[in-house]
Amino acid sequence: MKSLFGEIRDIVQRNDTKAGLAFDYVVLMIVLFAVSLIFVESLPGLSPYTKKALEYCQVAVVIIFTAEYVLRFSTAPKKSEYVFGFYGIVDLLAVLPFYLSMEALHLGADFSVVRAFRLMSIFRILKIARYNKALERFGKALSAVKAELGIFLLIVVMCICILGVSVYYFEHQAQPEKFRSAFDGLWWAICTLTTVTYGDIYPVTTGGKIFSSIVMVCGIGLVAIPLAIIAASLWKGFGEED
Amino acid sequence: MKSLFGEIRDIVQRNDTKAGLAFDYVVLMIVLFAVSLIFVESLPGLSPYTKKALEYCQVAVVIIFTAEYVLRFSTAPKKSEYVFGFYGIVDLLAVLPFYLSMEALHLGADFSVVRAFRLMSIFRILKIARYNKALERFGKALSAVKAELGIFLLIVVMCICILGVSVYYFEHQAQPEKFRSAFDGLWWAICTLTTVTYGDIYPVTTGGKIFSSIVMVCGIGLVAIPLAIIAASLWKGFGEED
Amino acid sequence: MKSLFGEIRDIVQRNDTKAGLAFDYVVLMIVLFAVSLIFVESLPGLSPYTKKALEYCQVAVVIIFTAEYVLRFSTAPKKSEYVFGFYGIVDLLAVLPFYLSMEALHLGADFSVVRAFRLMSIFRILKIARYNKALERFGKALSAVKAELGIFLLIVVMCICILGVSVYYFEHQAQPEKFRSAFDGLWWAICTLTTVTYGDIYPVTTGGKIFSSIVMVCGIGLVAIPLAIIAASLWKGFGEED
Amino acid sequence: MKSLFGEIRDIVQRNDTKAGLAFDYVVLMIVLFAVSLIFVESLPGLSPYTKKALEYCQVAVVIIFTAEYVLRFSTAPKKSEYVFGFYGIVDLLAVLPFYLSMEALHLGADFSVVRAFRLMSIFRILKIARYNKALERFGKALSAVKAELGIFLLIVVMCICILGVSVYYFEHQAQPEKFRSAFDGLWWAICTLTTVTYGDIYPVTTGGKIFSSIVMVCGIGLVAIPLAIIAASLWKGFGEED
Repeated sequence: MKSLFGEIRDIVQRNDTKAGLAFDYVVLMIVLFAVSLIFVESLPGLSPYTKKALEYCQVAVVIIFTAEYVLRFSTAPKKSEYVFGFYGIVDLLAVLPFYLSMEALHLGADFSVVRAFRLMSIFRILKIARYNKALERFGKALSAVKAELGIFLLIVVMCICILGVSVYYFEHQAQPEKFRSAFDGLWWAICTLTTVTYGDIYPVTTGGKIFSSIVMVCGIGLVAIPLAIIAASLWKGFGEED
Repeated sequence: MKSLFGEIRDIVQRNDTKAGLAFDYVVLMIVLFAVSLIFVESLPGLSPYTKKALEYCQVAVVIIFTAEYVLRFSTAPKKSEYVFGFYGIVDLLAVLPFYLSMEALHLGADFSVVRAFRLMSIFRILKIARYNKALERFGKALSAVKAELGIFLLIVVMCICILGVSVYYFEHQAQPEKFRSAFDGLWWAICTLTTVTYGDIYPVTTGGKIFSSIVMVCGIGLVAIPLAIIAASLWKGFGEED
Repeated sequence: MKSLFGEIRDIVQRNDTKAGLAFDYVVLMIVLFAVSLIFVESLPGLSPYTKKALEYCQVAVVIIFTAEYVLRFSTAPKKSEYVFGFYGIVDLLAVLPFYLSMEALHLGADFSVVRAFRLMSIFRILKIARYNKALERFGKALSAVKAELGIFLLIVVMCICILGVSVYYFEHQAQPEKFRSAFDGLWWAICTLTTVTYGDIYPVTTGGKIFSSIVMVCGIGLVAIPLAIIAASLWKGFGEED
Repeated sequence: MKSLFGEIRDIVQRNDTKAGLAFDYVVLMIVLFAVSLIFVESLPGLSPYTKKALEYCQVAVVIIFTAEYVLRFSTAPKKSEYVFGFYGIVDLLAVLPFYLSMEALHLGADFSVVRAFRLMSIFRILKIARYNKALERFGKALSAVKAELGIFLLIVVMCICILGVSVYYFEHQAQPEKFRSAFDGLWWAICTLTTVTYGDIYPVTTGGKIFSSIVMVCGIGLVAIPLAIIAASLWKGFGEED
């Protein structure tokens, strides 16, 4: 006959039983609630009453997450594996910022430090990812092409550096307030190669435009390489499953 | 010998006979006409005469679509299958908004409610899709990778949440009127990851730019995953056909 | 022993002899020269002398192209096959605008008609494509997936229509001067789905932004489909060659 | 027993020994330092002291790179192979601009010439690429589809020319200051086809918008072709390795 502790352990650790699945879904709901809290808190013009209510919600969430952490820790088969594993760290990061920010308030630390800690609480979202085992396949496909993606990243960084400095030399004199330094060129190069162009910075000189045009046409190929690598790797994974 | 009803049923339900094909093409033409009506109606500065003419066209289209619905319903081999099937609902949605808006006018409901109903009439376009059986292959390829795309969507939503809140913290103080809340950050994150950037909102601080740069370069990979999944699935479908 | 006509025919029609290849390259050079003429002519602030010189170049090019057309026609093994074939039409379009514009000038037609004819002369560029047989493989790969791409185009057009009207209803009241009619919404939808966003038109209402966000994330998948189709088709072609 | 020269040669030329690997990493660090120097030098508002310090760093880097070049040259098994090989030229380009700019200063050449030479020193970054053999696979995959990519580039250039001139004729009269010549149209065409749109130039006329819409939807397919080619080539490479 199972002990109470054994039953709780089954609920917390397993997700193949009815109670275990229910527990997981409840936690997921609270995670989603906690995430939406962060967004709602950022809204401007909240009344003091609303702010107070949000603060209470925040405290409630932290209490639940702390209880969950204690439960998961005490029922974990291997304590150190949980604490230093990915999900253990995520669970800790989900509550730690709150306690640290309280500490910071007591010690008279300024508000921006607290804000920086609050930012970390967004890692609670990563908890959602825990409940899906099909992610593993993606992980495998990506880790199979880790080396290739690494080299690609190196080439991209190299290209971005060359482009950034080049465009800076082309455009600096024509637009000194936009291309203030080679770092602005770097920002331009990243925006252009990824085709995420905000329209805040672009070449106006003929030389800069010709140079950019060559970069853009070649950039299509550059972007194609990681796509091709991942596609090939995933495709292989698909083939092996059948 | 076929009865009149049988002949009509053949025309309406089948598309492998000459009359059935002609019927389908006529319906397609009317659908296209109905769609173009919606666009023309939205043009500013129409004369009252034109507006009246468009209204008559609208009524004519609704009468034809209603007649078609009645025909399709009465000739359907299984009534409930048609009514609750995809095309039955589309057929109903193509005429329902008109009758509902008339009802709303009688009941004194305000104009915006009517407008919302008019919007639904655009589903008439979906009727075009009915007449092409090759779509099934796409549907099969997509449904084969449903789970993968679902997980991908989850990861994307998660990333967008993290990015949205992060950029809000980076940029809120520098651009309080642009990054008013974390929801503005969310809008930025979606625009950036999909590379659909309107130039209405972008980071200006050094921290925000560095953060964005990392997001963009990694974002290429993120966008690559669904591409790879669909490509692999379609490719498999191609292979099996041969 | 070959006649003079036979020798000319070999030079014009074949590209596996030294003289035939040289002829092809000379024509290619003239095509490139003719194309660059169009660009140079469009430059603002040209001196009357330069304009005159460009006009003479233009006349010279037309004379050469006319001579080439006559040569190709007279040496073609099957006259009608050349005249109504793709390259015959391109060859004709390369010279016809000039003669037609002269005619238009004599008849007192206005300038814009002449300009419209001049635009057609850009088809000379297509002559470049004639000299590369490896294009056929692309053509085959594309024609193998013609049906699939056709359906994709239909879906895209359908989606664009739905999106265009939807965004118009969302944004019309907030930005009446930008979203004047559903056609502006259509322009927005095309720009957004292709991620070619100029920043001239974008949603500002919360509803419009939420709607756009869903469109963007789904749009990635939409753009993926033709990529996947073409990739699969080309990939197959690659496999068969080995 | 090995001579001192033999030992140095092993350190410089090989990267499978401990000392050789360490040498390579030290050189890599100096390359990264040299690259960051270029960026820091471009920052506006540097104090004269900082500028002086950067100049000394620059001289130090050049001395090290010169020493490295001499070492690599003297220990190279085949002198001419190194000097005229890719890495020999890169090594030379990494130091040559400095000596040439000094020469230019002595000869009284103006500053912009020196700046142009400085730009060449960015090729030092390419040194990073030397230390990764996995790049060869990429190179092989790309060279296997060289012909296909060449034809694709030809088609793209052709399309861009046609689009550039077309949009110029559409938009020139409506926006004479934006579409000044067909070259502005060319810039627009490149920006649009690569979806790198800065929002500095876009069609405003109805004709131009309709034309652009067609271009954009077809452009998706155009961009898909090189992606598909590279993906297919890389994919093949993956398959052969197993």
